[in-house]
Amino acid sequence: MTSNVKTRLYIDAPLNAGASVELSKDKAHFLKNVLRLAPGQHIAFFNGRDGEWLGRIETLSKSAATVALENQTRPQSPMPDVWLVFAPIKRARINFVAEKATELGVAQIRPVITRRTVMARVNTGRLVANALEASEQCERLDLPEVFEPQQLDKLLDNWPAGRRILWCDEGASGGPIAQALAKLDDAAKRDPWAILIGPEGGFDEVERSRLIDFPDALAVTLGPRLLRADTAAAAALSIWQAWVGDWDLTPS
Amino acid sequence: MTSNVKTRLYIDAPLNAGASVELSKDKAHFLKNVLRLAPGQHIAFFNGRDGEWLGRIETLSKSAATVALENQTRPQSPMPDVWLVFAPIKRARINFVAEKATELGVAQIRPVITRRTVMARVNTGRLVANALEASEQCERLDLPEVFEPQQLDKLLDNWPAGRRILWCDEGASGGPIAQALAKLDDAAKRDPWAILIGPEGGFDEVERSRLIDFPDALAVTLGPRLLRADTAAAAALSIWQAWVGDWDLTPS
Repeated sequence: MTSNVKTRLYIDAPLNAGASVELSKDKAHFLKNVLRLAPGQHIAFFNGRDGEWLGRIETLSKSAATVALENQTRPQSPMPDVWLVFAPIKRARINFVAEKATELGVAQIRPVITRRTVMARVNTGRLVANALEASEQCERLDLPEVFEPQQLDKLLDNWPAGRRILWCDEGASGGPIAQALAKLDDAAKRDPWAILIGPEGGFDEVERSRLIDFPDALAVTLGPRLLRADTAAAAALSIWQAWVGDWDLTPS
Repeated sequence: MTSNVKTRLYIDAPLNAGASVELSKDKAHFLKNVLRLAPGQHIAFFNGRDGEWLGRIETLSKSAATVALENQTRPQSPMPDVWLVFAPIKRARINFVAEKATELGVAQIRPVITRRTVMARVNTGRLVANALEASEQCERLDLPEVFEPQQLDKLLDNWPAGRRILWCDEGASGGPIAQALAKLDDAAKRDPWAILIGPEGGFDEVERSRLIDFPDALAVTLGPRLLRADTAAAAALSIWQAWVGDWDLTPS
């Protein structure tokens, strides 16, 4: 951490020296009644564009707050360009996925409906809220983008050229994840990526055939035990970050 | 999976051909009223010693069940010798740690009290229940051993010679986890290990000094963002399994 200020809030407003930030009733309540802050104390802001800024609370009531921005404490830094593409799972676990994927530095969270997906409805508002809270907590300077669920086939139809897929395949068409990633050259590591996690019961044969032939899809296994989808997502993202993403950087 | 049987139960009883297994009232209720199984159907058992066995339900009422063991479907296989040593965190998150650590193949779950640990009381019974359910779910053939919380200093005083520590150090005394693990030779990979995760706020300076000097403690960082303790535990275990543990094996 670059400052001792513990409270970091995301806000969708420009951040610059001398600006005054008006907070919503919810946030004012949170600062006053939950965190018990008072005018004169400092909090930090980020908006996904302007880095992290320190502000001094000027006014604080239970329904409104004004914060005067003072100085930038961190510049905006680039994030790894990695998507998490996963078949939705039940409520507590999908909220967990949003939180963990955010902490683990994912750029986009994309639920996809597969042929064996049981859970077709997703409360994306709840995912956004979980991702936002996790961003504030983990010192990110941006929010991951959360998408409405879409059909896996449609997503693959419109797949962006050059974006590689790390396909966690229970059907074991690929090799162990460490060996697969160790073989990547530097150019492949610099490409945009997506981690693909299937539903309980796995992808069906039609989906598997398509993925096996899909350009730049790298099938990998995650060990000899059966992982829940949420565990697989967190594990694959962690391993990807360690070997391909930005975990060669140390905490700022 | 080696059989199509989805229901796997842990039982603390010998498993061998021709044996008859009596199930508790809770398990009988679960089979009959939750899973809606009936006599003649099959379930699988493991006990941590005798591999996985297939059994045929002979009698099933809401208070008792008898299952006749038929054949072994998998032999007992060795598990990686890795402990998870972590400062306890609040209830939902510590239950999550027990579940994820079990799926991720940990041998022992050891909560430790550090100087900055806020949560000193741990419901170990609940951790055991979560670990058991996760073992049944993830096709493990054993249960991780769950310990009562103890002081980190005491654990280190009695640390077993030769057990290496992967110390996830927010203080950044070490290098990135991937680079650190890539430098290990095969002998080091075969040693027993422990993953050490600190409390919110990190280890204090006295603890850090001791760990920096501790034999076979390898300090590593987990990227530029701040991870919650439960996220750090799942990430470090996943990465350890991929590069040191048994994730070079594929699903059976």
